[in-house]
Amino acid sequence: MTGIIDVALRAGVAKSTASRALSGNGYVSAETRERVERAARELAYSAHSSASSLATGRTSTIGVIMPMADRWYFAELLAGLQQALVDHGLDLTLYGAAEGSAERARMLDHALAGRRFDGIIAVCLQPGAHEFERLTATGLPLVSVGPFSEHASTVTIDDVAASRVATEHLIDLGHEDIAFLGDVVDGDRFSFGERKRLEGYRQAMTAAGLEDRIRALRTPSTIPEAFATTAALLADRRQRPTAITAVCDEAAIGALIAAGRLGIGVPNELSVTGIDDHRYAEMFGLTTIRQTPQQQGAEAVRLLRARMLDRESPIEHVSAPASLVVRSSTAPPRGS
Amino acid sequence: MTGIIDVALRAGVAKSTASRALSGNGYVSAETRERVERAARELAYSAHSSASSLATGRTSTIGVIMPMADRWYFAELLAGLQQALVDHGLDLTLYGAAEGSAERARMLDHALAGRRFDGIIAVCLQPGAHEFERLTATGLPLVSVGPFSEHASTVTIDDVAASRVATEHLIDLGHEDIAFLGDVVDGDRFSFGERKRLEGYRQAMTAAGLEDRIRALRTPSTIPEAFATTAALLADRRQRPTAITAVCDEAAIGALIAAGRLGIGVPNELSVTGIDDHRYAEMFGLTTIRQTPQQQGAEAVRLLRARMLDRESPIEHVSAPASLVVRSSTAPPRGS
Repeated sequence: MTGIIDVALRAGVAKSTASRALSGNGYVSAETRERVERAARELAYSAHSSASSLATGRTSTIGVIMPMADRWYFAELLAGLQQALVDHGLDLTLYGAAEGSAERARMLDHALAGRRFDGIIAVCLQPGAHEFERLTATGLPLVSVGPFSEHASTVTIDDVAASRVATEHLIDLGHEDIAFLGDVVDGDRFSFGERKRLEGYRQAMTAAGLEDRIRALRTPSTIPEAFATTAALLADRRQRPTAITAVCDEAAIGALIAAGRLGIGVPNELSVTGIDDHRYAEMFGLTTIRQTPQQQGAEAVRLLRARMLDRESPIEHVSAPASLVVRSSTAPPRGS
Repeated sequence: MTGIIDVALRAGVAKSTASRALSGNGYVSAETRERVERAARELAYSAHSSASSLATGRTSTIGVIMPMADRWYFAELLAGLQQALVDHGLDLTLYGAAEGSAERARMLDHALAGRRFDGIIAVCLQPGAHEFERLTATGLPLVSVGPFSEHASTVTIDDVAASRVATEHLIDLGHEDIAFLGDVVDGDRFSFGERKRLEGYRQAMTAAGLEDRIRALRTPSTIPEAFATTAALLADRRQRPTAITAVCDEAAIGALIAAGRLGIGVPNELSVTGIDDHRYAEMFGLTTIRQTPQQQGAEAVRLLRARMLDRESPIEHVSAPASLVVRSSTAPPRGS
């Protein structure tokens, strides 16, 4: 049977280098890794990963727990995680289930029962479901994307600031009747930072002396659902605000499609802002707060590897970049 | 240390049942699994999965190779795969990379080098890249979603028929100037079955004596790209067809948004069909061929498990259901 030493000889590297290249543990250059992988292939070398895992205590596998929704943010984040993990020779085992679902609880049990991972990246953790406590109890390196925890490194945008900046942009244009559109839930849900984004809107309105005009339009934040909610609202002239600041681009795009259907001119009769810079944002001319979930995924992997390499390394809380992108969906209110 | 027998005693089941419940190999009822998992949790029982894998030769892990694009079809399919695998206690290790990319080749090497899987599900395999040959050479149970292979079980809709039926619907309404909109590529690309869908359109046009009217509008089939392509085409009255049959709903929705932006009435001035029944299809009133990728995912897992349980079981080729859904985006051409 071909051994690791044969692979190393063929690739012209030290045995320890070949081992690092194939296991993904420790640094090797991309070029060396390719050479070792090619040698392994040519020799039909197949490390028995279970045996190797027993010997090193490492699985070279990261568990990723996230909602499985067909949403831009999750797709982009997952692509970023996948890319960064592959770059380090780490496999991605996915546990995708809606937050708060029975499935998600079962996946968590399953994921934690087997100790199959070197680390865990959890997206939109549910504080109410004690997911943090259960995950930190494993002692495995843990990174949270989205919700904040004292006990884990986290990556997230500043949701309060993002929404405040979007709202201030509308206020600066002269709008006073600005409605917040989003999935506004009380309690323990933190997904997408809805509550924090609502808070950012409130802060901007209050600072501008518009606290009496604060109103939140509840809608699930997918495009079709926001379309339906907004179409109902905008159809009634008396209820119609001059501007909508949406919890995310998908909600904003639903509002834009509804306005188009009802013949309401954007931005002349209605201004709309989002948060994301979704890949449809440019097509709709949407003014938004840009975030880059692919980079957030890469950042999460960097934080996780720091903890994997040194369990005593400090917990880090990274605020991911976000910036205002002004397009054609916002303008001063008519008559101003 | 807590053993499997302690878990079995606490759960009130046989040791073999507890083992099946925790390993995911073999049948146990959902209720029993929950009871065993609870007992394992209460006893802080942690099967060393690597040791268990060495003993049984099973990893309880399935490798899923697929494009990582932010597309409705892949998100739905992945959700279906995840759900069905979890139902059988199987983990999903994801290798997400674009077809034909260097990353995808590297992931394939990595996935195959370690023998970490009990089986592989591959989505949109690249025949030109010899992915089939490399995957079948592993001897692992293999299921292909999309492309057809003699050597692996496959799940796919009948792409030729889907596109033919959509085109026939437009012909039946009286359209003669029908353009096909999609990513029409020659060579070895089979993703989304574009070539087969183009073929279905050609068949319908030819059967109706409209072979002289056959024309394909090349566009990448995402919403923003199809929007840009179609906006350019529709702006020129002389080029404008009376109907567009799109390779998928995302291309069709791009065309609908472009028509809306240009003030072209749908369906009065332009009829549009898609293939998918994307979750935005209803919002846009899109007439389409409905397919259900979540079910295709479940079907792929069923086919894979059949091969995992009995390596001599026959290869199956499953044609997934697809049916015409008529909404408001299609009508007879004006003046007919």
